[in-house]
Amino acid sequence: MDAKIIELLRGAGDGYISGEEIAQRLGVSRTAVWKRIQILRENGYDIVSHSRSGYSLREAPDLLLPQEIQPLIRTQRIGRHIVHFDMTTSSNEEAKKLAAQGAEDGTVVVAEEQGAGKGRLSRGWFSPRQKGIWFSVILRPAFLPQEAPKCTLLAAVAIVRAVRAFGVEAGIKWPNDVLYEGRKFVGILTEMNAEMERIHYIVIGSGVNVNLRPSDFPPEVRDIATSLSIIKGEPLPRAKLFAAILDAMEELYFDAIENGFGAVFDEWRRYSVTLGQEVNVIGVNETFAGTAVDIDEDGALLIDTASGRRRVLAGDVSIRPRKK
Amino acid sequence: MDAKIIELLRGAGDGYISGEEIAQRLGVSRTAVWKRIQILRENGYDIVSHSRSGYSLREAPDLLLPQEIQPLIRTQRIGRHIVHFDMTTSSNEEAKKLAAQGAEDGTVVVAEEQGAGKGRLSRGWFSPRQKGIWFSVILRPAFLPQEAPKCTLLAAVAIVRAVRAFGVEAGIKWPNDVLYEGRKFVGILTEMNAEMERIHYIVIGSGVNVNLRPSDFPPEVRDIATSLSIIKGEPLPRAKLFAAILDAMEELYFDAIENGFGAVFDEWRRYSVTLGQEVNVIGVNETFAGTAVDIDEDGALLIDTASGRRRVLAGDVSIRPRKK
Repeated sequence: MDAKIIELLRGAGDGYISGEEIAQRLGVSRTAVWKRIQILRENGYDIVSHSRSGYSLREAPDLLLPQEIQPLIRTQRIGRHIVHFDMTTSSNEEAKKLAAQGAEDGTVVVAEEQGAGKGRLSRGWFSPRQKGIWFSVILRPAFLPQEAPKCTLLAAVAIVRAVRAFGVEAGIKWPNDVLYEGRKFVGILTEMNAEMERIHYIVIGSGVNVNLRPSDFPPEVRDIATSLSIIKGEPLPRAKLFAAILDAMEELYFDAIENGFGAVFDEWRRYSVTLGQEVNVIGVNETFAGTAVDIDEDGALLIDTASGRRRVLAGDVSIRPRKK
Repeated sequence: MDAKIIELLRGAGDGYISGEEIAQRLGVSRTAVWKRIQILRENGYDIVSHSRSGYSLREAPDLLLPQEIQPLIRTQRIGRHIVHFDMTTSSNEEAKKLAAQGAEDGTVVVAEEQGAGKGRLSRGWFSPRQKGIWFSVILRPAFLPQEAPKCTLLAAVAIVRAVRAFGVEAGIKWPNDVLYEGRKFVGILTEMNAEMERIHYIVIGSGVNVNLRPSDFPPEVRDIATSLSIIKGEPLPRAKLFAAILDAMEELYFDAIENGFGAVFDEWRRYSVTLGQEVNVIGVNETFAGTAVDIDEDGALLIDTASGRRRVLAGDVSIRPRKK
C-alpha cells in the first residue's frame, strides 16, 4: 500500500493529489490513507498536505524501503517480498531467521546499517548507515546441496552485471570477490541449510560499498577496499543499483533452474580477473602456487601447478603481481 | 552430578551410602545432595532413604538419561554432553536449535518420545515412548559441505556395527537405510548448516526401533518395518545399545577426521545389501534400472545401466527381487 501511495504521489509530480482520490484508487478509507501518510512521514518522506488540494511529495528519503525498490524491479519472485531494517546486526542472520520461519523463495532482507555485518569465514563486513547496500536473498531452489556453491558465483555475476550497467568495469576474483583495480567493494557470504539430498534454503548475503568515502573505511581495510562513489567520483543512486542487482539475480537464477549454470559460468569467466593469472592458493591444510586456468562444472578453480593440475573448492586465492 | 550420585548409589549395591559421604565425594553440601536425590526420584529413580544408613537405589527407570548413558560410553566427545527430553517434537529440531546457540561438537539430543519424528524428504518417523532410541548428534567437523553426505553413511555404519555386537546381522541399503531381512528398523536424517567453504554444524538424526512390538507400528508401515526386539524375540537394553552406537560413531568420526572416509566406505561396503543387486533408481527427474556396482569417493552410488555407468547422489533405490 505504501508503494502505491508513493507511486500516486510521484504521479502528481510537484502538484497535489487529494486524500479522497488516493483512497478511491486504493479502495481504502481516507482515514487509512491518512494513517499511512503519517507512517511514511516518520520514515523520512517529506509529504506536505494542504486542506483543499491534498498531498504532495517534496522529497523521498534515501532509504532502501520496499516502496522505493519495488517500482524499479521487473522481477517475478526476487524482491516481491522485501523486509527492511533501519538497523540490524546482520542481514544474513535476519534472513536465516525468516527462512527458518518459512519465508518464501526470493524474499529479500535489506538494512540501512549493520552492527555486525558478516563476511566469509567469520570475518566482518563494515556496513555504515546508508552508505551501501547490505542485503540478503533467500532462495529455495530444487538443487542438490552440492550445487549451492554455484549460487555464490551467480550472485557475483549478477552484481558485476549491475554495476557495469552503471559504468564500473568491475571484475571477479575467484570465487566471489568483486574488485575494481585490485580493490574490493563487494563481499558475498552464502549460507545454506540442507538435508543431504535437498536444500531447505540458501541465504545469499552481500555487502555492496556504494557511497563510502575513503575516510569512512576503518584504517585496516583502507588500502584494499573501495566503493562505487570513490571509483566514479560521484555518489550513486542506491535504490536503482539495488533494483538492477535484483533484476540480474533473478534472470540468472531462473536460467540456472531451467538450463543449469552454464550461462552463469560463461559470464563469470568473462568478468574473471583470476583466470590466466599466476596465483597463490591458501587452502585448508596447505599453500601452493600455480596458474589459474578455468573453473569446472562444479565452480571449482582449476590450477596448473608444477606437479600437475589441481582443483580448488575452498580457500583464499591471491593473484601474484606480474613481473615487469 | 546426577551421574556421579547414581554411580555412588550403584557402587553401594543393595546397601546404603550416607548423604554425608556422597556430599564429601562430590565436594558439595548435604542439602545439594538431597535436592538432586529429589529430582532423581521425580525422574523415576526408586531411591529409598533411611535416617541413619543413608540412600539406596532400588530401581533405575528405563530412560536414556545422561547419568544412565555416560557411565557406559568410552567416548571423548560424542555424548559428553547429552540433552534428554521426555517428549519433544523431533530430536533434530532440538539439536538444530542447540547448534544455532553454539552447542559443541559431539552434543547429543535424545528423547523418550517424539511427537513429530522426521525422516528424509519430510517423511515422518513413528517414535513411541521408550520403544526406541530417538536421537541426534551435533558434529562440527572441519569438512567442506561437499563431504557432509559421507557422514550419513558413517552414521549407518556405526549403527550397524553396534547392533551386530548385539547379535543382529543388519545390512545397509544405500544410502543409509538399516535393514534386517528387507525390513527397515533404523532411519537416518542428516541436516547441515554451512557456508560454501565451511560446515557450521551437521545434525545426524536417527531413529532406532528397539522394543516396538508388531502391533505398535502404524498399519501402513507394518509390512516394511521391524524392530530389534521382533528380530531377537526379546527386548534389548536401550541404554547399552545407545552407548555402543555412540562409541562406534566417535571411533569412525575421529578416523574420518584423521584419515578420510576410506575405512567408513570399506565397512559400508561390507554391510551393504545394495551392491551387486539389480536396482531401480527413482531420481529427482527420472527413473532407471541397472546393477549397483560400488560407491565412489563421494559416497555416490555407481550403477551400470544398459547405456553405461551412472552416478547417483540422491534418490530412492529399490532392490529388484531376484528371479527364481
